[in-house]
Amino acid sequence: MEPGLCSRAYLLVGGLWTAISKALFAEFLATGLYVFFGVGSVLPWPVALPSVLQIAITFNLATATAVQISWKTSGAHANPAVTLAYLVGSHISLPRAMAYIAAQLAGATAGAALLYGVTPGGIRETLGVNVVHNSTSTGQAVAVELVLTLQLVLCVFASMDGRQTLASPAAMIGTSVALGHLIGIYFTGCSMNPARSFGPAVIVGKFAVHWIFWVGPLTGAVLASLIYNFILFPDTKTVAQRLAILVGTTKVEKVVDLEPQKKESQTNSEDTEVSV
Amino acid sequence: MEPGLCSRAYLLVGGLWTAISKALFAEFLATGLYVFFGVGSVLPWPVALPSVLQIAITFNLATATAVQISWKTSGAHANPAVTLAYLVGSHISLPRAMAYIAAQLAGATAGAALLYGVTPGGIRETLGVNVVHNSTSTGQAVAVELVLTLQLVLCVFASMDGRQTLASPAAMIGTSVALGHLIGIYFTGCSMNPARSFGPAVIVGKFAVHWIFWVGPLTGAVLASLIYNFILFPDTKTVAQRLAILVGTTKVEKVVDLEPQKKESQTNSEDTEVSV
Amino acid sequence: MEPGLCSRAYLLVGGLWTAISKALFAEFLATGLYVFFGVGSVLPWPVALPSVLQIAITFNLATATAVQISWKTSGAHANPAVTLAYLVGSHISLPRAMAYIAAQLAGATAGAALLYGVTPGGIRETLGVNVVHNSTSTGQAVAVELVLTLQLVLCVFASMDGRQTLASPAAMIGTSVALGHLIGIYFTGCSMNPARSFGPAVIVGKFAVHWIFWVGPLTGAVLASLIYNFILFPDTKTVAQRLAILVGTTKVEKVVDLEPQKKESQTNSEDTEVSV
Amino acid sequence: MEPGLCSRAYLLVGGLWTAISKALFAEFLATGLYVFFGVGSVLPWPVALPSVLQIAITFNLATATAVQISWKTSGAHANPAVTLAYLVGSHISLPRAMAYIAAQLAGATAGAALLYGVTPGGIRETLGVNVVHNSTSTGQAVAVELVLTLQLVLCVFASMDGRQTLASPAAMIGTSVALGHLIGIYFTGCSMNPARSFGPAVIVGKFAVHWIFWVGPLTGAVLASLIYNFILFPDTKTVAQRLAILVGTTKVEKVVDLEPQKKESQTNSEDTEVSV
Repeated sequence: MEPGLCSRAYLLVGGLWTAISKALFAEFLATGLYVFFGVGSVLPWPVALPSVLQIAITFNLATATAVQISWKTSGAHANPAVTLAYLVGSHISLPRAMAYIAAQLAGATAGAALLYGVTPGGIRETLGVNVVHNSTSTGQAVAVELVLTLQLVLCVFASMDGRQTLASPAAMIGTSVALGHLIGIYFTGCSMNPARSFGPAVIVGKFAVHWIFWVGPLTGAVLASLIYNFILFPDTKTVAQRLAILVGTTKVEKVVDLEPQKKESQTNSEDTEVSV
Repeated sequence: MEPGLCSRAYLLVGGLWTAISKALFAEFLATGLYVFFGVGSVLPWPVALPSVLQIAITFNLATATAVQISWKTSGAHANPAVTLAYLVGSHISLPRAMAYIAAQLAGATAGAALLYGVTPGGIRETLGVNVVHNSTSTGQAVAVELVLTLQLVLCVFASMDGRQTLASPAAMIGTSVALGHLIGIYFTGCSMNPARSFGPAVIVGKFAVHWIFWVGPLTGAVLASLIYNFILFPDTKTVAQRLAILVGTTKVEKVVDLEPQKKESQTNSEDTEVSV
Repeated sequence: MEPGLCSRAYLLVGGLWTAISKALFAEFLATGLYVFFGVGSVLPWPVALPSVLQIAITFNLATATAVQISWKTSGAHANPAVTLAYLVGSHISLPRAMAYIAAQLAGATAGAALLYGVTPGGIRETLGVNVVHNSTSTGQAVAVELVLTLQLVLCVFASMDGRQTLASPAAMIGTSVALGHLIGIYFTGCSMNPARSFGPAVIVGKFAVHWIFWVGPLTGAVLASLIYNFILFPDTKTVAQRLAILVGTTKVEKVVDLEPQKKESQTNSEDTEVSV
Repeated sequence: MEPGLCSRAYLLVGGLWTAISKALFAEFLATGLYVFFGVGSVLPWPVALPSVLQIAITFNLATATAVQISWKTSGAHANPAVTLAYLVGSHISLPRAMAYIAAQLAGATAGAALLYGVTPGGIRETLGVNVVHNSTSTGQAVAVELVLTLQLVLCVFASMDGRQTLASPAAMIGTSVALGHLIGIYFTGCSMNPARSFGPAVIVGKFAVHWIFWVGPLTGAVLASLIYNFILFPDTKTVAQRLAILVGTTKVEKVVDLEPQKKESQTNSEDTEVSV
């Protein structure tokens, strides 16, 4: 019996639990703010209907702010498609991915509910639920969402990757989200993020074509993850290592990749993570 | 009697006084420019009424410029809500916070007065005083200002924190201010900053719903400070340490957190600060 | 017979081939995304015709995203004019330049085809083919494209040059592309990039004034390369060295110039490159 | 007779001459591009008259591009007001300041002439000459230009100062120029830069209120230089040192302040400068 070892393990588990709780809270907060502000930008105020450019810029800034607030705590996914991409690329475990997605959906719903609460009745309308433009076919809608999310996830990987970036990822990921909206709003209102579609759909109870905004983004995210992690910047993990990361029994899971200036002590518990 | 010690103390107090004077001047200047340009963007020129997007972008750029000019001198608060958040997070002393807020209110009033002076009579109107949209209730107005300021203060902490940022905070804080305006203009004209509401209100003498722009932003700022400093990135200060910082009898008060490249000699007097 | 040497040479050639394949794939991908999103921004959706500002901002974001995704793999040319400028400045070999341009034209065509596929029939129109405004003469059109591309290529060199840049080049190059569009859209629809003109022209079969969008940009690019590499920042390569780089028999060819933080192991194969 | 010394002096003078020639060429080029693109953004194309926002954003991008291209060669003034501010702050010599201003005025005229040449006759109009809005008094116009330039020059100092900046100065200075335009276009068309007013005035021969665009910006620049160099970040130069810098007989003149990563060999000749 070594009590020292025991208490160390206890501290390790405690630190791990704290780190995971903070990460889930950060995902909840980031997704909530993203949905509150992003969906808030499409409200049909009669005094000045928002233009496509205005909506796209709002999503740019909402993304940048949400990423800036959460990236050191959770990696700033705030999007089930991004989480799936990290899972496919063997960056995070399946349990963590599932917890992240749950936190994201809860955050998106809370953000949409808050927006509904503060908005005058006549302006609420359908609360920015994603729909397909009437001249666009279902196949075209799925394809567009796939391409939009493909470029987003490629840009997320390139911007969060310590080997590549020279600047804060917040602005770059915002850029990519805005780019998607500038093209995608015309086709589908632009989702690229199942949580962003889910939140308002829950609040106003409209799920007519909701599946499109899971199938398109998730497919695009998987494709982007394969391109980035297996073609452009292939890593050397073995299948056994990938499996160990998947189930969460390895130390190599890295949530926050970019740490060029090792000054933080708060996030050190991440490095000692043993399982999720 | 040790004259060397005496003169050192004299120099220390002198250096401290200079540093504080410069910080207050920087807060005055930054808030003045912020109000002059921000409020200047809402003037109703008949040739081209400003759009919501144009106003939001102007506030973005005004914030970025004001932060860039003042952040190494005073920490670039330029906003009583931000100063309160730093006070709650035990980053600055109460005397400093009160002096900052006084400098901000004076700067905002000067900026509004200067704008009033250079603007042709027919364009002055109510000089961009914040009001509540007629379909928005008072409670909704307070709630919106609370959420807007919450995200702003979270972003300020994340952007001024040396553990997190890879880039100049000016652009990121501008992003967050613009985000608030893109949503908030419709509800309340968007304040997020009691000083921004105070300056024009003094000049045109309109204080009808002015309290909303203190209660909403200050509540949001306190909430954001608790989230950032006690949940996301908790520090290890004891209650005694926090009290010492509050009354200004400690060395650990840090006005300018982010100093990754220690090249400045002008701001060294900050490090030797003993009381405010 | 030294098998060790032999296998090392084999590995070297293999690594070289992998690096080049990845670079060509990156050029294909970056140019494809650039054309899909850039040209996608000019589609005449009846609900809200895109403004010049909206188109310029979309090209800004499309450029930033494409550069961010590809710059560590291929140097992020995504434009035959940029590739020619690097060739003239003795940064890359002729075989590499030719392969890059082929990949760019293929990518642009694929991007335009994909856009054509997902767009409803009534919106496709001429798919953003570059044309000359009817009050602009052919000479003026060539001159405008020359100046637009001149500033773009100067900005590309300054932003990819490790001696100069402090930030990620993606945002700066996007800035320059948007600047060109804000002026150029009125004159020629703005190309600055033969591949961007080529892709849509192939899909809709319109090559009336297509030559202008090769002659103008390529001339501007050569001029910019001479200004940058021979006047502003002259290097000390001899004619023999330049010839060796041109034909690809030298080690000094550098595709990715900016490597301030040598953390990447994936791109090391570039350094051992012997011929292309 | 020491031929070694003699030839070293010869090389030194030669290197100095090369550095100055390059700096003047860079000022010419940067100001020319700034005027071509900036003034180009106000051309009254009937298909889509440019909005205030569009003009301001174009000036933002034009500034960022011009600074990015020239800042390592000449310090990227591209504006007589900025040059005067550096002179007042004892950063450059009087001979250099005069040569810079001459190069800027020549560049601005060339840029305006080039724009005139490529623009269809019906669109040329007054080529964006600065005028005073008819409801604005002359005093208000001077005051507005003073304040606009004050914030610009403060931002230039803060962004080019190695003690303060964490990012490339190009984007920050562009931000400040755009901020001025968003407010100033309504009052005076916004100059903030005598060269920008001078170029078009020469080409179309309109000098009616031209003096305003020298007096306002130059006064604002001097005021900003005093605030920055004597209040916010006072340096310790003696009057004798300032005089020596003024006449150009000292080594401490620094054109390019920000050199955090000493990789450049091209600009080393600056360090050995003895007189201008």
